[in-house]
Amino acid sequence: MRPTPSADAATVTFREELFRRGLLVETGVPGVYGRSGEFDDTVALVERLVMAAGAADRPEVLRFPPVTSRALIERSGYLGSFPHLAGVVRCFDGSERDHRALLRAVESREDWGVGLAATAVVLAPAACYPVYPLLAGTLPPDGRLVDVMSCCFRHEPSDDVARLQSFRMYEYVRAADAQTVLAWRESWLARLVHLAHGMGLDVRIEAASDPFFGRTGALLADSQRGQGLKLEVLAAINGEHAPTAIMSANYHQDHFGELFGIRAHDGSVAHTSCVAFGLERIALALYRRHGLDRARWPQHLRQAAGA
Amino acid sequence: MRPTPSADAATVTFREELFRRGLLVETGVPGVYGRSGEFDDTVALVERLVMAAGAADRPEVLRFPPVTSRALIERSGYLGSFPHLAGVVRCFDGSERDHRALLRAVESREDWGVGLAATAVVLAPAACYPVYPLLAGTLPPDGRLVDVMSCCFRHEPSDDVARLQSFRMYEYVRAADAQTVLAWRESWLARLVHLAHGMGLDVRIEAASDPFFGRTGALLADSQRGQGLKLEVLAAINGEHAPTAIMSANYHQDHFGELFGIRAHDGSVAHTSCVAFGLERIALALYRRHGLDRARWPQHLRQAAGA
Repeated sequence: MRPTPSADAATVTFREELFRRGLLVETGVPGVYGRSGEFDDTVALVERLVMAAGAADRPEVLRFPPVTSRALIERSGYLGSFPHLAGVVRCFDGSERDHRALLRAVESREDWGVGLAATAVVLAPAACYPVYPLLAGTLPPDGRLVDVMSCCFRHEPSDDVARLQSFRMYEYVRAADAQTVLAWRESWLARLVHLAHGMGLDVRIEAASDPFFGRTGALLADSQRGQGLKLEVLAAINGEHAPTAIMSANYHQDHFGELFGIRAHDGSVAHTSCVAFGLERIALALYRRHGLDRARWPQHLRQAAGA
Repeated sequence: MRPTPSADAATVTFREELFRRGLLVETGVPGVYGRSGEFDDTVALVERLVMAAGAADRPEVLRFPPVTSRALIERSGYLGSFPHLAGVVRCFDGSERDHRALLRAVESREDWGVGLAATAVVLAPAACYPVYPLLAGTLPPDGRLVDVMSCCFRHEPSDDVARLQSFRMYEYVRAADAQTVLAWRESWLARLVHLAHGMGLDVRIEAASDPFFGRTGALLADSQRGQGLKLEVLAAINGEHAPTAIMSANYHQDHFGELFGIRAHDGSVAHTSCVAFGLERIALALYRRHGLDRARWPQHLRQAAGA
């Protein structure tokens, strides 16, 4: 009798099959992959389902490029908490002589990026950052709700196929008084589970923390988890034994309200919350759950994918 | 009698109206803008039309993230020709002490990016680069044809609303023997004009050159234009007097075939060509041509946008 394959073997097989079938394509960089037309069509399906799940609230819709203002990220506190994940963009602005030196450095495999100059941009670390400065001032009585998406970057090279360095993040961002924001996040927990179940995914919700940097960061992470500020929806991508966060519901208290001068209608510092969806991760969870042959997926998903 | 506004005044007005109506949203960085849901829906319409224009040829479809392998760009010759446009990604990989120094530099508005480390990625300068290494080896008898898209970056901050630093580029990439590739590019010229006319755009085709760096670059640009290697489809975005390239048809001769070891079926070094579409630029040309109120666009475009 053949032994049941271990979860790890199945996970290795899942990853290899994604590449073998061409759903993902190696680029030589861990976590940076090309995608087939079908894979991106599945991501588009996920995007439509996420959009539909929030459409009844009639959010304002904004889309942002994969680079964002460096000044914004400096102001946001991101570099204090996650310096190791930030992708900073630098450019050559030298003379023709400098250019010849740069090409020699490339040729001799030195670090030719040392002498590059600062630019006004960094890679977007999350979809919601560019929203907060737009909310500055006093919010309307019911606050504001924004539907936002961008391709994000985190410098964490990994062979875990669920841990991409470059990935699309869809978010709903809510800003209002604390009570309104907390009730809104609470209402989304059931919607997240409903959305996942509608896709046939088995999920569970867990208190979690962000990957804060350093020893102080470890304390921040404990505090975040202890207060239940970050809740993650987990699903199997790399096997049942190590489920992956595919969605999260985050409560920032008055962190962004304070930093960006956002005030609730009553004059208090606004609180904010965001519900975030990792579109590629949800797509991967669908392939893991329903198999790599999309023609054999449940009919309602196949029909939605063909829309 | 009111004077007729000059073309420049109309151009200023067009830009201002895009922001006033919220189709584009300022981020504080020239050429890096947020977009409304409607603007991105128009970009998606353009994407569908471009895909439909090439679908009969049944291309392989690949999508790539906005970051790409640094080793690939080093090998491609991009840094020799366009060092000033490249966006190089660097990351913090220091200790907690280094982190405190970084935060002090941020606080005192110094260039805190100087000490960052190299990463394996740069911002994608064009959609087609990741395709060439995948074509290495001997091509099938009719060569290969790839439909590819990614969000690209060029460091050229500008208030010209048509000159984005971060923009989506759709490309068809053809690799085969020289004769096949030239005939393919020739056949696309009529299709480009047909596609533009179908969108109601007045266009003209011109020999053009890429923005090569430095004095040697100026010679390369002259040679490229003289040989007709780059043909651009121009349409009005900033007024009729200064039309903008919205599409291009590029013949690389054996440049990429040589660099990436691509051989035609007969064993010769493969030639390559790509036809490229600036999706935001085409969307802007549509707003310029048909007006900022999409409800008043020609019916076939409105219907396609609502699809």
